[in-house]
Order: sequence, then C-alpha cells, then structure tokens
Amino acid sequence: MPAEAIKYVTKVDLDKPGGEQPQVHNRWHPDVPSTVTIKPGEVVKAECLDWTGNQIGNNDSADDLRHVDLTRIHYLSGPYNIEGAKPGDALVVEIKDVQPLERQPWGYCGVFHKQNGGGFLDKFYGECAKAIFDFHGIHATSRHIPHVKFTGLVHPGIMGTAPSMEVLEEWNAREKKLVDDIQGQHDTAVAQLPQTKGANSGQATGDLKERIAKEGARTIPGRPEHGGNCDIKNLSRGSKCYFPVYVEGAKFSIGDLHFSQGDGEISFCGAIEMAGLVTLSFSIIKDGTKKLSLKSPLFMPGDVQNQYGPARYLTFEGFSVDETGKQHHLCANTAYRQACVRVIEYLRRFGYNDYQIYLILSSAPIEGHLAGVVDVPNACTTLGLPMDIFDFDISPEAEIQKRDMGNCAFVSGTDHPVHFDYDSLK
Amino acid sequence: MPAEAIKYVTKVDLDKPGGEQPQVHNRWHPDVPSTVTIKPGEVVKAECLDWTGNQIGNNDSADDLRHVDLTRIHYLSGPYNIEGAKPGDALVVEIKDVQPLERQPWGYCGVFHKQNGGGFLDKFYGECAKAIFDFHGIHATSRHIPHVKFTGLVHPGIMGTAPSMEVLEEWNAREKKLVDDIQGQHDTAVAQLPQTKGANSGQATGDLKERIAKEGARTIPGRPEHGGNCDIKNLSRGSKCYFPVYVEGAKFSIGDLHFSQGDGEISFCGAIEMAGLVTLSFSIIKDGTKKLSLKSPLFMPGDVQNQYGPARYLTFEGFSVDETGKQHHLCANTAYRQACVRVIEYLRRFGYNDYQIYLILSSAPIEGHLAGVVDVPNACTTLGLPMDIFDFDISPEAEIQKRDMGNCAFVSGTDHPVHFDYDSLK
Amino acid sequence: MPAEAIKYVTKVDLDKPGGEQPQVHNRWHPDVPSTVTIKPGEVVKAECLDWTGNQIGNNDSADDLRHVDLTRIHYLSGPYNIEGAKPGDALVVEIKDVQPLERQPWGYCGVFHKQNGGGFLDKFYGECAKAIFDFHGIHATSRHIPHVKFTGLVHPGIMGTAPSMEVLEEWNAREKKLVDDIQGQHDTAVAQLPQTKGANSGQATGDLKERIAKEGARTIPGRPEHGGNCDIKNLSRGSKCYFPVYVEGAKFSIGDLHFSQGDGEISFCGAIEMAGLVTLSFSIIKDGTKKLSLKSPLFMPGDVQNQYGPARYLTFEGFSVDETGKQHHLCANTAYRQACVRVIEYLRRFGYNDYQIYLILSSAPIEGHLAGVVDVPNACTTLGLPMDIFDFDISPEAEIQKRDMGNCAFVSGTDHPVHFDYDSLK
Amino acid sequence: MPAEAIKYVTKVDLDKPGGEQPQVHNRWHPDVPSTVTIKPGEVVKAECLDWTGNQIGNNDSADDLRHVDLTRIHYLSGPYNIEGAKPGDALVVEIKDVQPLERQPWGYCGVFHKQNGGGFLDKFYGECAKAIFDFHGIHATSRHIPHVKFTGLVHPGIMGTAPSMEVLEEWNAREKKLVDDIQGQHDTAVAQLPQTKGANSGQATGDLKERIAKEGARTIPGRPEHGGNCDIKNLSRGSKCYFPVYVEGAKFSIGDLHFSQGDGEISFCGAIEMAGLVTLSFSIIKDGTKKLSLKSPLFMPGDVQNQYGPARYLTFEGFSVDETGKQHHLCANTAYRQACVRVIEYLRRFGYNDYQIYLILSSAPIEGHLAGVVDVPNACTTLGLPMDIFDFDISPEAEIQKRDMGNCAFVSGTDHPVHFDYDSLK
Repeated sequence: MPAEAIKYVTKVDLDKPGGEQPQVHNRWHPDVPSTVTIKPGEVVKAECLDWTGNQIGNNDSADDLRHVDLTRIHYLSGPYNIEGAKPGDALVVEIKDVQPLERQPWGYCGVFHKQNGGGFLDKFYGECAKAIFDFHGIHATSRHIPHVKFTGLVHPGIMGTAPSMEVLEEWNAREKKLVDDIQGQHDTAVAQLPQTKGANSGQATGDLKERIAKEGARTIPGRPEHGGNCDIKNLSRGSKCYFPVYVEGAKFSIGDLHFSQGDGEISFCGAIEMAGLVTLSFSIIKDGTKKLSLKSPLFMPGDVQNQYGPARYLTFEGFSVDETGKQHHLCANTAYRQACVRVIEYLRRFGYNDYQIYLILSSAPIEGHLAGVVDVPNACTTLGLPMDIFDFDISPEAEIQKRDMGNCAFVSGTDHPVHFDYDSLK
Repeated sequence: MPAEAIKYVTKVDLDKPGGEQPQVHNRWHPDVPSTVTIKPGEVVKAECLDWTGNQIGNNDSADDLRHVDLTRIHYLSGPYNIEGAKPGDALVVEIKDVQPLERQPWGYCGVFHKQNGGGFLDKFYGECAKAIFDFHGIHATSRHIPHVKFTGLVHPGIMGTAPSMEVLEEWNAREKKLVDDIQGQHDTAVAQLPQTKGANSGQATGDLKERIAKEGARTIPGRPEHGGNCDIKNLSRGSKCYFPVYVEGAKFSIGDLHFSQGDGEISFCGAIEMAGLVTLSFSIIKDGTKKLSLKSPLFMPGDVQNQYGPARYLTFEGFSVDETGKQHHLCANTAYRQACVRVIEYLRRFGYNDYQIYLILSSAPIEGHLAGVVDVPNACTTLGLPMDIFDFDISPEAEIQKRDMGNCAFVSGTDHPVHFDYDSLK
Repeated sequence: MPAEAIKYVTKVDLDKPGGEQPQVHNRWHPDVPSTVTIKPGEVVKAECLDWTGNQIGNNDSADDLRHVDLTRIHYLSGPYNIEGAKPGDALVVEIKDVQPLERQPWGYCGVFHKQNGGGFLDKFYGECAKAIFDFHGIHATSRHIPHVKFTGLVHPGIMGTAPSMEVLEEWNAREKKLVDDIQGQHDTAVAQLPQTKGANSGQATGDLKERIAKEGARTIPGRPEHGGNCDIKNLSRGSKCYFPVYVEGAKFSIGDLHFSQGDGEISFCGAIEMAGLVTLSFSIIKDGTKKLSLKSPLFMPGDVQNQYGPARYLTFEGFSVDETGKQHHLCANTAYRQACVRVIEYLRRFGYNDYQIYLILSSAPIEGHLAGVVDVPNACTTLGLPMDIFDFDISPEAEIQKRDMGNCAFVSGTDHPVHFDYDSLK
Repeated sequence: MPAEAIKYVTKVDLDKPGGEQPQVHNRWHPDVPSTVTIKPGEVVKAECLDWTGNQIGNNDSADDLRHVDLTRIHYLSGPYNIEGAKPGDALVVEIKDVQPLERQPWGYCGVFHKQNGGGFLDKFYGECAKAIFDFHGIHATSRHIPHVKFTGLVHPGIMGTAPSMEVLEEWNAREKKLVDDIQGQHDTAVAQLPQTKGANSGQATGDLKERIAKEGARTIPGRPEHGGNCDIKNLSRGSKCYFPVYVEGAKFSIGDLHFSQGDGEISFCGAIEMAGLVTLSFSIIKDGTKKLSLKSPLFMPGDVQNQYGPARYLTFEGFSVDETGKQHHLCANTAYRQACVRVIEYLRRFGYNDYQIYLILSSAPIEGHLAGVVDVPNACTTLGLPMDIFDFDISPEAEIQKRDMGNCAFVSGTDHPVHFDYDSLK
C-alpha cells in the first residue's frame, strides 16, 4: 500500500497572463465548466495564481501597480465538481494547508491609486505604494518595511460555490440598483457590474464563453449567498467551512491567496498577495442548506493561528467622529478608519512614513473588532497591533530612537508627500 | 511592615437610587468636584453602581426594563484627582481587577424597547426582554437562558478623564450639528444632548450643580478624546490604559461594569450589567499626549482573557446586503447586523427563541471582526461564537435535539412573537 | 426571588494558630468529622488558612521560616459532607474561584533550610530565604524581588477526598516500607509517617481525636488515590476535577492556597503561599470510580490561564547529567534540576542573586515539561520562563544592564554566600 | 531583482539506505567533514531522511520495526559550516519551517520490541506495534488509529553543533562510567557507547572515516553540551535556538524529523517519524557561550503552536507509586509512567486497545508537566490530553459508545495480548 504524493487538480503558469490560462476563471456563473471532479473525502492540491494573474513584479517600483488592469484579476482555480453535491446540500471544505509556491517565495502588498482601486484611506493616501515581502518558511519580511517580521496566517481571499442562475440574477439586479441609486454621489465606482472586458470564462468556448463574460458576476465583492471575496484572515490552515450548494456538483472555486492580512484588508490590495498552493478536501451534508439554516458560509478556524498573548496587542480605539471633527451616526466604517489613523500617528514617531504604516496595517495580522455599535451617536471599534512583529520596542514606555526605515516602492519619477497632516483638516 | 487591606476610594449603596448618591456622577464636565486625591503608584478599590443605579431587579419580569428612565443612568465613581496630573500629560490606568460585589452576586442583560433605548436589532425585536445571570465565582449562568455557562471577561464599560471646557464645547457642538442635520430622517434619537433632567452632578452644589447639569455631556456615547462609554470587552482584568489629560488632576471616572459582553454590545443594555468593585492604580507620563500622539485612549489587554482555542469558534459571515435583499455600500454596520441574524437563525434550531439568542449574542464573549471593508459594494464581517459556552454540541455536525429552553423575562401581560420571520421581508 | 450573597461554609481566624482552629484539620483520616453538609449543585465559599496556619509574617527576615514547625502545617478547610456521595462514586468539584482574602492581600514564598524542609536545590542553597508578595488585584509584586510582576494563576495546593480505612492503611504501610528500605541512605527524611505531634483532628474530640492524630496520614505528599498535596498550578479558577469517593459523603477537604507557582514548586514552600477564599460546587457521578476507571483524580483546567504566547517563553533545556558531570540513567528529576540551574546562571547576569532566582522559579508561572524520557542514558526536560513577567528585556539579544535588585529576606544575623559556584564541582 | 526559490543545501534519496548516503552522517565527531558553508543571514532548505534511513515501510505489518537495525539510524543532514562561527560563540538557528516531503506524505509511529529499543512502558507492552499516519496538509490521520486527527507540531528531533574533541571525550568517558557502574543491574542497555557497526561518517574517507566510526558519539541520547536528540516537541516552526559552538564553523547538523510528538516521546520511536524538509537560517553571537552562560541550548518557540484552549485538555495525574503499589522516592519518571497508564485505562473504555493508546500518547501533542517534585515521598506529574483530537466526545460526561477501532499493525503471525491487566500486579 505505498502512499503517493497528493494529486494536483490545478497547476498554473507564472510566466503567462492569467487571462490566457483556461484552468482558472474570473467570473461567477453557473455555467463555467468544471475543470475536474473530486470525490468526497479525497485530498487534493491546487495551485493558484496571485490575484492579478502575474501583473505585478518583484521590483522596487510601483509602476506596475499604477497601471494594473482591474478587469483582469481574481483568476480562480476551478470550478471543481464535487461528486454527489446537489442544490440544497451544504459543501464542507477543509483547508488542509495553504502555502506559497516553492518556485516563487515572495508576495506583495500595495496601496492602489485613488483612481484605480483606491483603499480604505484613499482620501489621505491617493498615490501608489508597494512593498515586496520575502517568504522564509513561515515568516515574511520586506526590504521596503524594515524591522518587521511576522508569521503568515496564510489564507485564500476568495472561496465560493457557483451561484445558480437565479442567485446570479439577484446579484446583478441588486448591485445595479445600488449603482442606479447612489453612483451619482460618489467619484469612485460603488459597485462592479458585469463586464466582458477582461473576462476569463475558464474552459468555456464559443457562445458560452461570451455569455459567461456578459452575465457573470464580478469577483471583487464577497456576497452573502456563497462567500466569494471575503478576505477573512482567519480562514487559514486547518479551517473547516460550510457553503450552500446552488448547482449540481457545487462548482467550488478558490484563489486570491494571501500570505498574511490585517482585519479589513484596508489598502485594497491589502494582504500580502501571492501565488500559492492549497490542499483541500470536501464532504457533503445532504440538505445542509436547510438543516444548518445556511444563508451565508460558516466556518471554524484551524487551531494554529498566530498567538501573541492578549497582552502583546497594543490596541487603538476608533470612534465615528471623522478627521474633520464631524460627528457620524454610529458608523463603524468611520470608526475603524479613525483607529487606523491613530496607528499611523503613533508609529510614524519611530521613523516609518505613512505609506509604510498603511502597508503594515494592511498586511500584518492586526485585529479589528467592533466594540460598541449601539450608543448614539458613536460607534467604537478597536484595532489591535501585535507588538511582537517589530524587532524593537513599540510600547508606550519605549524610548523613541530614530531608525533608518528606508522606503516603500513608489511610482517612478513621482514626488509626493509621504505623510498626511491630519491637523490641517480641523 | 504589616500589610493592610487595600483602601476604598468609593463605596456605593445598593438600596438607594443612583441619583441620590453624591459620590457618583453622570455627566462629563470639567467642574464635577473630585471626590478624592490618589497618588501615582497607590493601589485603590472603588465600588461602582450598575449602570441604572439600582433601577433593575432580580426577578422574572422585564417591567422595570420597560420603564427605565434613561436620563438617570451611568452613575460613575469619581472623579478622582490624580496627584500631579496636568493637561497634556497621559494618565496610565492599570485595571488590577474587576469583580462583582460579594453582596450582590448577580447581574442582568436586557433587550430594550424600541422606543426606550432600542438596540442593534430593534427593527426585528422591538419588545423588552431580560435575563438575570447568577455569578458563581468566575462563571455566570442564567435561569432565563439554560444550557449556557461562561467565564466573565469582566470590564468597565465606561472609563474616562474629564474634558476641558474647550473639549466639552466641541462635543456639544458637533453632536448638536448631527441632530440638526439628520434627526428628521430618524424615528429614534440620533444623539443625546445635554439635559438637566436626571443629572447627578456629584458633590457639586448650588450654581455649579445646575451648571453641570445644564452643560455636562451625556454619558451614552463613547468619544474619541477621552474614551468614555466604549464598551470594549477586552479592557478587562490586568489591562493597562493610556488617557489624555485635559484638566488639573485628570479627574478620572469609571463605572458601567460588565461581567461579560459580546463585541458590539448589541442589545444596548447588552452586557451582563452589574454593580461591582474595581482595583486600580495610576501613573503619569509627562507631556504624554504629545509624546504618544494620543488623540484617543490606547490600551494593552491583560494576559488572562478567556481562551477557547481558535478552532472552538463557530464563525458566521455577514455582508452589507440587508434582510430585505437591498445592497448597501460597504456598510460594516449592516454587515455585522446580518452576521447576528445568521446566528439567530442557526441557534433557534436548538430550541432557543430569538430574544434568548439576542441576549446570548449581547452578553457572551463573542468576537466581532471587520474582515473586508474595501471591496465594493460589500463590507464583510465575522462573528465568532465560542462553542464551549454551551453544555451541548452546537457544531454543524451536531444532531439537533429539542431541549426545554424555558424563556427569558418579558413585560408582564404582553404576548408578542418571539421569532422574527426574515423570509417575509424578501 | 432576591439573590443573596453566597454562603460561607468555613471561616478562619488569621490571628490564631491553625492548631487551635477546629474548623480545619491537618491529617487524612476517614473519621475526621465533617464540618458541614453541602448539597450537589449548591455554590459555597470557604476560607482557608495559609499552609503554616499563620506562622509566617509580612516582614523582612526569614527567622520565622527557619523555625517553622513542619508538623503544624496544611490546615485544611473541611471535611465537607457532600449529600448523597457514596463509596465508588466520583465526586466532581468545580473550582469556581480562588482569591486571596481581602483582609490579607499578601503572601510569601520561601526557601526552606536544608534541615527543615529543604527543597529541590538544597544541595546548593541550604539556607533560608523569603520573599513577601503584595497582591494588587490579579497581580503580584515583591519588594524582595524587584522588576518582576505577574498575574496569579491562583489555585489550591491541596484537595482530596477522605481515604477509607483500607486506603489509609495502604498509605501508611507503603510509606513505612520506603522508610525501612532507604532512609539509611538519606540524610533528610524520605517520608513523613503518622505523628501525633502537631495533629489537628478538626472537630474530633476525646479518643477519636487521639486516634486520628495517631493513625492519620500526613499531608505533605500527594497520593494517587485521592490527590491531596498535588501542587498542580493549573488547577486554577474554573477547573473541574473528578475524585474517587471512599467514604460516605466523600469528606472533601481543601487548603494550601497558592497565588501562583511554577511547575515543580521547587523551593518546597515554593508557591506564593497565602490564606484565601475558594468558591466551590459539587456534583456526583454514581459509580464514577469504575465508570471513569478513576484510580487518580482527573481534571480539566479553566479557560482563563495566563497566556503569554508560546514565543514569549525563554526555554531552557535540562539533561540527566548532574552538576558534577556524572551521568544518570534517564532521571527526569536530575534533568529538571539542571534546567533550573541553567536559569539561575542565565538570570544572575542581570543582577539577581541565586536565592532570588530560586524564588522566581518557584513562584512565577514557569512551565516544566518532560521532553524525552526514553533515549538512554539522558532524560531531557524543558523549563519555560515567561519573559513578560520582567519589566526589562531578558531575551538573549538584550543588553545587560546592571540594576539594583535589592535582596530577599534572610535569617537575621546570618552571612552566607548568595551565589553557588557550579564550576567548582567539576 | 527577481527572487529565486530558496537554495537546498541537502537532498536525500528515499530509495537508498541512509548508510549509503554521504550527505548525511550518524555520529557526533568534530572531524565529520562539513558538507557546505552557509553565510549568516542566508536562508536555506535541507532535506532530511526519516530517523531509520528508509528502513520502515508504509504497510500493515510491524515486521520491519521488529528487525530494525538500531546502529543504522539518525542520519543527520550536515554538518553545515557557518561562516565565521568560532569556538566560544553562540550559534543562533532559526527554524523557519519544517515540512514533510511532498513526495512522501506519510510517517509512522512505533512501539519497539523490548529487546530492540523498548520504550517507556516496555514492562507492560513488550511487543512491536506500528501506526502509519497520512499527512493531509497540516493534519495527520492514521488508518491504524481511527477517529483521531490532529495538526502537526512539526519539529526536528535532533539538532546540534559538533562537539570538540575534548567535549567528545567527556561524553564517552561519562557514559562508559555509567555502563561500568550500573549495566549489571539492567537487562537492557543503559547507554549506547561508540560502535563502528552502522556508522555513517558522512563525507569522510579512509582513516578519518574509520576514526569517526570508532570514536564518534552515538546519537541516541540528547546531551547537555549541544542538545542533540532532545525530542522537544515545541522546537517547531518559527523557533529560535541558541547553541554553544565548540569547533570552527560550528558544524551544525539536523535530522530525525517528527510530524508530531507527545511530551516524553514515550514509545521510543514515539513521534510520527518522517522524512522531511527544513528551512533554516543562522546567525552568530560572538563569545555568546560566555555572554549567555550557555551550557545547554536555549530556545524560544514559534508563535503558531497548536492551541486548544486550556479547558480542552483532559488532564491526568501521576504519582511516584508504581503499578505494584510500591512507593518510590520523588521519582518523576515513575510518576509520569503512572499518568500514562491512567490514560490507557481511561481511553480503552472507548474501544481502543492498549497499544493504540500507547501510540496516541506518543504521537499526539500531549502535554507532560512536572507538578510537584519536593513533597516526600511522592513526585506528581500531569499529562494533558487534548480532547479535540478525537472526533467523538471523550470527556468524563460522555456516554460510552463502542466504536470499531480497528487495530494497529503488529508483527506478522504473532498473537499476543493487546491489553495489560494492571490489577494483576497488586
């Protein structure tokens, strides 16, 4: 009974654009052809492209980030047909492992330009910035953010079962309604509606390929019915997830791997994005959607998450009064944004510039909690920063000592401020 | 060098309304007289009233909750003058312990009426409900929510330094502006402006007493400048907090103790509210407000928080698509509300009614995280429910077995639905 | 249904020798009269004396330690009759809380004289030393060991059910045999056989009192049949323990409270010894001794133990080659002793003397693990020292900076070395 | 600046006996030629053979175990010359990752025959037994021990710097003295002295090869001076270790990888033994041996160890009264052996046979602590068994339900008891 290495169900090419690889796809549609059938209980490995499908390089400029094509992203491995899965069942997915590819031991975190992706703090940091992280076993460090090292809480940013046609139509309708209702009040896109440009319909050909490109839901948002782009940092090694099944075989897809991410993934390309390898197994709970009242995915994290001890988190409070002093009504987003700004003001005293800190908040395993959401008019959130990711003391008792913190990568030839003067807004 | 028991700086009376006890106060104002002076390094104990100042009884009816007077709340112990603290300093507060009072080993969690306090889910659960929790050492159980037991992550809901007159005026102005701007669009109060009714000005007398009542900021919201009613469950035993100082002596106040609370304190009176005893010590960082860039409080939690292991949290996902199917734009509040509803739908299968689950979510140490806040149009949040607080198996693999779950306390003579039919909204 | 404060089943007097207090006892015997009957499910509180029954004072001399009478120790609260417990049942004990007494917020840790108690390192440190610890809420600090602060993992050193006469006879016989066999090879006592001197037979009077004193097993050792003096630091707040029952009513006793202790309790009086208050409840598993194959107690710790994060333990290795270079055969005791010596050599570089470090190892929550016990001829053990109990950096990367470390309390008028020169032994 | 995959410094052949592979060695000797030079700061990967050098197969018989040649074991990768390391320095080793080989995703745990290796319980279980574990990402399961699954706390069993000639001579002398002194009282070997049979001297040839074989210390025991075969389960991913340097270049070797192990590695081949891949980096502390008082290795574990929550460990107590009822004097080994027996008696009620439980105790991440080692005559130890590695409830409250537990692999054609009757010994 000799054991063999675990079977690969997807391999990817790191030298070819994601749009030219039919074993991946980047639209959610019930009719994307499944690439393989997997039996319940079988353990398989799947390689995944980085979310941009090889658009970003390991270099010291953010030029590639500035010009990234956001229609050509989120190339997902799959969809996988799980033998026996029927609409109404629950699909149980065990994430047995997530790893970088041995042949590409690095990833990147980026602040996207305000006009091309943006991010949680794009009002203050509208330019592009990039940090390359090198992976040394379970650790990551960046030449663009010195004195920081942490263990990856490696996870897929995107997992989901295929929508039924009915579910897909609901998505497209409700998102279109949002655009119709409020796009006029915003200067950046409030939703990403279906668009043929940049679509990868996987192994579909001919008319089907066109139809998927035209109807398929975009992958940017997560959605309650199936998960999708949730960017939940704790869905890491050893997690067990439960998804509703909408189509025969479930058609499960996975991708957008992150070596590490902070709660909120605040800089948009805010995790350490990477190509990588997942190890998976599947099982089925018959009629599980109803049995578990499963309107959105459920999961239990694995048992090996980073553990610093609660007393090692320097924790910042954020409230729904914005940087101009304006009072918002119980808005958790405003509150969390303020907590992020508090960290920037705190850490810049050690010599980092604001963009570097923005990247730290995005990529390191920071904890973002809702604290109070009912006491009018202020929502309160907390942001826990693990002190042990720094190789110097950042506690309030620490003596400030200026260090050479180098710089993150910016767009070539640009010269813009790297600190934002919040006091100027008041 | 015989050691003596630690000195009490505040004692409270459990048989008298909070409004009649001058050693506590319930307005934020620079001129509330300090009740005592404490030296840096000294360890002291302070008793605190429950947030309603003895308005709620240990009984099986929610009548007291229905008629609670929300102007007569948040009686805070203090303010304490910390010797040597000057405006611009940082006040370091060590929360050495938080305990229930030995003479009152119980607390309560309540769903408030939609027209008197409301809560995070008041659109669905507008009636009053109450659960009494008995404290057995570090554990709490409730006769109104059987089969649940957990260890308290005991903490003060409110802590803060006194505002300067300038800070106070800023608070009152910005909250008034909110009322002016948006109250018309809401059917419940969007902010609580100063109000003489119910004011407890502490030891102030005569004109000063009136002036504090008239000008003093209400205690309902937390505020970025000093913390206040943050309801951060992790600010528990052993935490070390850093506050900006605005007035001579800092004038620190504390109260609104919670035996336990879930992230968000969603039912408004959503923690296990209790009278109790805190052990504190203080120190000062000169010019700390500037040195630490301290615009809001900072803290490091203690090292003895409940630890269930990450794999013991059944985790629910919530997105910013509301219960009617409407798409909201990156709204973390909507997303977290949906995660709460997912738990209600899941747990009711075991026999609990919706109000009981609402109370569990409010009072048990659940984890509410921001997962993704940048992928238009959906914010994603997670809600981690520790499975080990139940004495039966609630995992997705569990066999459903109907148990007698009794009931929480409702208003006498009422007869209203205890489940909400979410499907009716679509 | 007004709740009342929880009932006390034992109160103790801190101003009277333990030997004069009949609500406690210090011998294990089936006929010690039970002091009270407790119903299953009832929650009760019991005060406990410190292990010496008030022999040790809060002062700066170890004179009291030098002359402590070791026959007059381990005054246990109880025994408690648990209603319905029968021989063959299992008694389930929930340790709901353990606290110092509010009226005595301090404890002590001591190195005992080699001729009066000794300790794990008495070959090197034969003199007496004492450290007084002050309790500030959940934290302890000592004026005799500066720059150290930790949260108590508070626990009873002793818990047990009463032996039957048959069990008692087995104890006395097997321990007597040990004395007969090997006492001649040792210069300190290898076991403590029954002795009337110093006996406290609780509420027994007349002949029974004499008989208990004469036959009763001493409390120094833990014993497999019922637990007893186990000194398990993890049997702390929230633990649930299962004991075999040997007599009607179980006759459960408890005492020897520790504010904190390191694995091994190496200095003999090696925990922070204190008087205190336990909160308990009991239940019964019928025929549980057989059902659970319960030859020794079982337990599950509580969920709020100190948590520093694994990476915050500086971990020392110890092997079964002793300090003279002699090879021992797989002896875990020798190996653990060597790990202790490694810590002493490491920490003394920061300015502590050896006795202070010996007391740190005894009292702080250090982790002592068996690593390998099968690879001839060396056993290997590890000793994990939590770095975060020190207020300065003790990591290998730390710069050594001499601090004034003061001194622990020694016997008045003595002048002996405070460091041991291990290299002199080779 | 394109990043390349991390460099391999050792590759191994899984189809050839370890004795025929010169890139590994199995004796400790200063003159084993270093295989490669590594710069401080460089990150490298090294493959390692399983400890038997491919002697054990993935099958359902323990025949290979029965006849394993224990002189032909512990093939270590290296030694590695670390550029700049000098005698007296400390070598800092970061274990960046430890993984099974992708091409061999399985390992084994074995009970060795009493006459060929033995184990901690060989008085009761003298026959051979084997369990094959399959690795699915971070999880392991065994067809020979159903209903158990756990996450690997993957680690090298052996790491060490090369001894100087002086250190080597001390080892050989003191171990020989032990054999001279006490071998007569034992029926199994008390130490493994140098032996040319089975020696692999790495890349040494000619006379040097012979001399290493003749003088080189065996690898079975760990040794205080350099670590070696410590079998410390917590020396896992992300650990940082400090070793004394005795020879130019340090000559660091590593091997004997374990997917998982319980404290004590009690069945001798008691971990899940595997071939695998380590990722390492090195740095040097000049004069670190003296600076750190480094007589034995030190380490800090990584931050991603399995975390079940303390309340999820069912904990057994063991005392130094042996299974015949004989009292031993403070012997931690006896105490831990009794704790192991308590687990066997407890778990066999669920249907496992004793050998299966012995293998669980050896291979799963159980916690073995020293509790008390000073209270004559009983040492007390604890053994914490994580309940969550079982897919059914093993708590004391569980209903016993007989399951088909299959069997572990035994020697072909044997028929021996699989349970030991401990009561027969009394």
